[in-house]
Amino acid sequence: MNTMRAVVFHGMNDIRVEDVAKPRPKAGEAVIRITATTICGTDVHIVRGEYPVRKGLILGHEPVGVIEELGEGLEAEYAVGQRVIVGAITPCGQCFYCLNGVHSQCHGALGGWRFGNTINGAWAEYLLVPDARANLALVPDELSDEQVLMLPDIASTGISGAESGNVRVGDSVAIFAQGPIGLCATVGARLRGAGLIVAVDPVKERREMALRFGASIAIDPGAGDVVDSIKRLTEGRGADVAIEALGRQETFEAALRSVRPGGTLSSLGVYSGKLVAPYDAVYAGLGDQRIVTTLCPGGKERMRRLLTMVQNDRVDLTPLLTHHFTLEQLPEAFDLFSRQADGVMKVVIHPAGVGKHENVRREPAAMQG
Amino acid sequence: MNTMRAVVFHGMNDIRVEDVAKPRPKAGEAVIRITATTICGTDVHIVRGEYPVRKGLILGHEPVGVIEELGEGLEAEYAVGQRVIVGAITPCGQCFYCLNGVHSQCHGALGGWRFGNTINGAWAEYLLVPDARANLALVPDELSDEQVLMLPDIASTGISGAESGNVRVGDSVAIFAQGPIGLCATVGARLRGAGLIVAVDPVKERREMALRFGASIAIDPGAGDVVDSIKRLTEGRGADVAIEALGRQETFEAALRSVRPGGTLSSLGVYSGKLVAPYDAVYAGLGDQRIVTTLCPGGKERMRRLLTMVQNDRVDLTPLLTHHFTLEQLPEAFDLFSRQADGVMKVVIHPAGVGKHENVRREPAAMQG
Amino acid sequence: MNTMRAVVFHGMNDIRVEDVAKPRPKAGEAVIRITATTICGTDVHIVRGEYPVRKGLILGHEPVGVIEELGEGLEAEYAVGQRVIVGAITPCGQCFYCLNGVHSQCHGALGGWRFGNTINGAWAEYLLVPDARANLALVPDELSDEQVLMLPDIASTGISGAESGNVRVGDSVAIFAQGPIGLCATVGARLRGAGLIVAVDPVKERREMALRFGASIAIDPGAGDVVDSIKRLTEGRGADVAIEALGRQETFEAALRSVRPGGTLSSLGVYSGKLVAPYDAVYAGLGDQRIVTTLCPGGKERMRRLLTMVQNDRVDLTPLLTHHFTLEQLPEAFDLFSRQADGVMKVVIHPAGVGKHENVRREPAAMQG
Amino acid sequence: MNTMRAVVFHGMNDIRVEDVAKPRPKAGEAVIRITATTICGTDVHIVRGEYPVRKGLILGHEPVGVIEELGEGLEAEYAVGQRVIVGAITPCGQCFYCLNGVHSQCHGALGGWRFGNTINGAWAEYLLVPDARANLALVPDELSDEQVLMLPDIASTGISGAESGNVRVGDSVAIFAQGPIGLCATVGARLRGAGLIVAVDPVKERREMALRFGASIAIDPGAGDVVDSIKRLTEGRGADVAIEALGRQETFEAALRSVRPGGTLSSLGVYSGKLVAPYDAVYAGLGDQRIVTTLCPGGKERMRRLLTMVQNDRVDLTPLLTHHFTLEQLPEAFDLFSRQADGVMKVVIHPAGVGKHENVRREPAAMQG
Repeated sequence: MNTMRAVVFHGMNDIRVEDVAKPRPKAGEAVIRITATTICGTDVHIVRGEYPVRKGLILGHEPVGVIEELGEGLEAEYAVGQRVIVGAITPCGQCFYCLNGVHSQCHGALGGWRFGNTINGAWAEYLLVPDARANLALVPDELSDEQVLMLPDIASTGISGAESGNVRVGDSVAIFAQGPIGLCATVGARLRGAGLIVAVDPVKERREMALRFGASIAIDPGAGDVVDSIKRLTEGRGADVAIEALGRQETFEAALRSVRPGGTLSSLGVYSGKLVAPYDAVYAGLGDQRIVTTLCPGGKERMRRLLTMVQNDRVDLTPLLTHHFTLEQLPEAFDLFSRQADGVMKVVIHPAGVGKHENVRREPAAMQG
Repeated sequence: MNTMRAVVFHGMNDIRVEDVAKPRPKAGEAVIRITATTICGTDVHIVRGEYPVRKGLILGHEPVGVIEELGEGLEAEYAVGQRVIVGAITPCGQCFYCLNGVHSQCHGALGGWRFGNTINGAWAEYLLVPDARANLALVPDELSDEQVLMLPDIASTGISGAESGNVRVGDSVAIFAQGPIGLCATVGARLRGAGLIVAVDPVKERREMALRFGASIAIDPGAGDVVDSIKRLTEGRGADVAIEALGRQETFEAALRSVRPGGTLSSLGVYSGKLVAPYDAVYAGLGDQRIVTTLCPGGKERMRRLLTMVQNDRVDLTPLLTHHFTLEQLPEAFDLFSRQADGVMKVVIHPAGVGKHENVRREPAAMQG
Repeated sequence: MNTMRAVVFHGMNDIRVEDVAKPRPKAGEAVIRITATTICGTDVHIVRGEYPVRKGLILGHEPVGVIEELGEGLEAEYAVGQRVIVGAITPCGQCFYCLNGVHSQCHGALGGWRFGNTINGAWAEYLLVPDARANLALVPDELSDEQVLMLPDIASTGISGAESGNVRVGDSVAIFAQGPIGLCATVGARLRGAGLIVAVDPVKERREMALRFGASIAIDPGAGDVVDSIKRLTEGRGADVAIEALGRQETFEAALRSVRPGGTLSSLGVYSGKLVAPYDAVYAGLGDQRIVTTLCPGGKERMRRLLTMVQNDRVDLTPLLTHHFTLEQLPEAFDLFSRQADGVMKVVIHPAGVGKHENVRREPAAMQG
Repeated sequence: MNTMRAVVFHGMNDIRVEDVAKPRPKAGEAVIRITATTICGTDVHIVRGEYPVRKGLILGHEPVGVIEELGEGLEAEYAVGQRVIVGAITPCGQCFYCLNGVHSQCHGALGGWRFGNTINGAWAEYLLVPDARANLALVPDELSDEQVLMLPDIASTGISGAESGNVRVGDSVAIFAQGPIGLCATVGARLRGAGLIVAVDPVKERREMALRFGASIAIDPGAGDVVDSIKRLTEGRGADVAIEALGRQETFEAALRSVRPGGTLSSLGVYSGKLVAPYDAVYAGLGDQRIVTTLCPGGKERMRRLLTMVQNDRVDLTPLLTHHFTLEQLPEAFDLFSRQADGVMKVVIHPAGVGKHENVRREPAAMQG
């Protein structure tokens, strides 16, 4: 068979499941059969036309699958049939940026993000993986697709918020917004040794999930001044690290104001318009503060590290997987996800299991701390 | 009353409980009434004459207490009656070393360690605290003496093993020896985001405790080649970070050999004689490895951070507290501890509670992960 | 004599030389006799009423002098008659911020800056130095007052721009504005191993000075698009590190746009109003960039390090000293400096030498690279 | 022509210039025509049989040349005829080690070092470059072969000694041995902002060269106790950073003893036998010290950075090039170099210029600071 089913972008608010050519790998590339994928907030921006991609592109950047075919030069390290994940970001490892350690900016600004952005993505039966040697991460047998599905993007992104913020043992960390990325940032703050973890979100269910994921306290920004609350919780100083996980001016500014002198604002959000830092929020430029932005770290070694965390029971993100769909149902899943309906956190798309899965909302399992 | 009871070093294997002058604070100093203290492996070295201190010195460097009297200049920040802990290391914050960020080496090699080393220590009813502004850390009301007793030394030291080793999310970490320091290093590896944590100790009870404290696997070095085991667990590479927590050539060398190229050996042990690194264990000097040694971090801010960890249920070391004694019984406690008898891990000395506590071995409570 | 001459702030644009009480040290404090001081851009902000300080305050924060009197507890380390400098920032070394390594924010936002801000400053015959043990740095005999006068503030600040930006060997660094701080940032970029150093300033004399101080190239922002020029010089990428040394929105934004993905904007300027970062200048928050602000590092160890640099012929800032005045002439010097008249870079005020020095513009000596 | 001239290892002390097959590139590989190369101390170890390589191997790992032929997939980035250098270390950028940022350990211990070790090297008319995209660095037209010949190995290695040691502005740095690597470490210490730079070597000419390359002072270890001297120069403390550039127990131990508490020993030497650290030299493991080893950083971006340093007149290593030979004369050059005869520092081998160059000792040009 030379064709496959895939979800193709046809223009603003127009995605269609259709037959397209099945990819074949060239030297150094691999093709994987997708067994699970998901929908990301970034995909919503794309479909709404807020982030431009070319028409005809297959979207999606969170692949779990099985090696289907290997291009030349990969046989020594990989074999057809192996289960793998691939990061949302697929660095080459060999360009200026990669050799400078900024793999996500491979070949230039945002260049490491290729799937569903500059090349075909994971909302399909098959996916072509470029620079496969740098990007195919083997999945241990004992881990299910669902256990690893969040690793390519939101786990890597969210945890990096705490890493880029250089959270230290005993730090106070405030995380603004507790969607999937923010919840993973909460997990990250815990993994890096934070003492007090303050999760901020207006949605009650998300605050509850934050507490399950390791927050010390969860604050509703509608219930009073968040910055004041964070200062009260930190003897008047402010947080050592604040993590922005939404991408709006108001959360950016609140995060900035909640950081103590000498502290760090680690920003994960995708912004539009402009970011404004009132001079008093940065102590006129004299506060010894840092603002750090991070694009999802990728590459096979990042994925291997995250797989190790799951394997050793240090990270369990399956409570986020609230809904299941087939590939044919992806537009329906997209509609649900983009409306944030039915208490959805993350959906699972099962391309390999067409017909096997129904759209069922499952009760999240208990979080293993 | 101008005298107090204290445990005084009179020479090799000769410590006595006796009456001595109660200290009075000068400007910038404080006197605290000790409510709990403990015995450390370093004290054993001292009493055995292996580490020289002057005769007449009061030993002990792990104080929990209540402010009894404040010297000039501290009234704005502290008040008599406040509960405090003080780190085993009491930096001044103002010398060459402190201003270079190496507070433990305050004024010169090992100079931050003063209690029970160069000035009177905590095995007494009262303790004079130098540079009090840099060193008195307030204890939150809801925390018991026992919950905070391990913070001044072993928690700070053990966790620093992981910090100095720069453990990253997904790292494999091997910890050699699981005495109190090694167990705290295991806690530290977990707090810094390690994936696979391998605890090594010949004693079964300590391996079991290691698993409770967060180790992924515990290895008996008598049951086979430890370095081989660690390499097998890490796809043949070796650990990203190894922590030495005993202070012997054999564990130093095994730790070194268990570190992968580009990895770090973080050393906490106190060594005598010499350390030997066979050239093949360091890849002839070409392996891009690091060896880092750390003396217990002190100062009130380090203590505050550790208190935050206890307060937010991230660290609970009370399972280590196996035996309780009065100050008068300290020589008896020392005998038990130095012989490592009766399954002792750490003892609690209650100077304030003479008569109140019996020497009872308690069953450790469940570890809160 | 219990009085001294000093320059006192009496309100907006009103400074007067008058008799005030000579300070006396309490425990831990010292009084130094000022032998040289200078005027800073920040002083201009203060006198113009743009940065509020209390009326009656003696201004100035760049002291070179001789120990006149020591408070209790300093005799072991210092002696009357020793030549010293004191940083513009005088950290205590013992508070939350200092113990967290953010000495400039001692006791809270900007709290390390005390001279001429919250306590009396250096525009006087005598200066009271708080926390003297942490702040008095001995000046080697062979160094003149003029050789060390820039160290307390502009050398420390400017060089920290390169340090906070973490300039690495072979980096491309762009420095926006080449006033005294920017010129010192140029020196700092060179000291940290930058390859290409691009200095940006509209004033021809400052661009020439920048080339003498180590810039590879000096650009006039009026002669074309600076961001384009910097990208052309870096194969289209942008600088690894940009340093902002002026404190205006336009230079902030140009610096931001000149930084490559994964690069760092190190900000030294003092801002008013608000800082705006257009979303495209930060790649929508996905560019793996850092923005770092730094307040002048102080404390005796910072000063000692800078003194070492002068002593070993690695830094020579005397070319910046264009004009000389007595203390009585300080208002006149202030007028000249604030108007940036007569090619002034920095002025030297000689309180000890009333009558000895005339206001002479000297030709700068050759820069020793 | 399918053959070329090359210097082949035939066993201990047996290297021969002979005809061998000219290499052809596969996908991702390149062949360069060597225009200049040199001999390294490591080559001496190899030829003497102290470091094992297979018989039949072409030695040499410091290539300067011109692209002769490109394998598939490189056309977009490179073109035949371009001048390039390639690092002695040729990382792939895509393996576990590279993705962890330890490129020199590519694929495992020392694995990044391939030329003249595990694959054919640069002592030949032509050289096959693996993973060419990660390793070919374009040489700017205005730089001569001689200006860039030291970059692939000794400049990269020596400077990394200061980088790995994390030399900071104002640090005191002691460098043990001033052969080519040690001299480059001296350059590195200067580039990273050291204040006091102490160069140690028994050979007068090398001490003089050290002073030309930026040392503050040069010490003859035969003239008195070096450790004492270094402590005297640093107010009794010891150096902040010591760099070992020889690979012997005696220099390792002296370097270790010359490091202050909290300082770093950065080791570049290649050791045999074992390394011994007397416990008092490491303060019984409690001195907060670091020992760091580094293998020459490679890859095209490292080379580009070093090229930038030469291009911007920040590094000039041509004074090290004391002798010139043709490829046919390489065994003769080897004999001279291995005996350290005739004041040799580094030799230049000109494969492309057979007959053009005579073996002439040139007077080193003046060092441009």
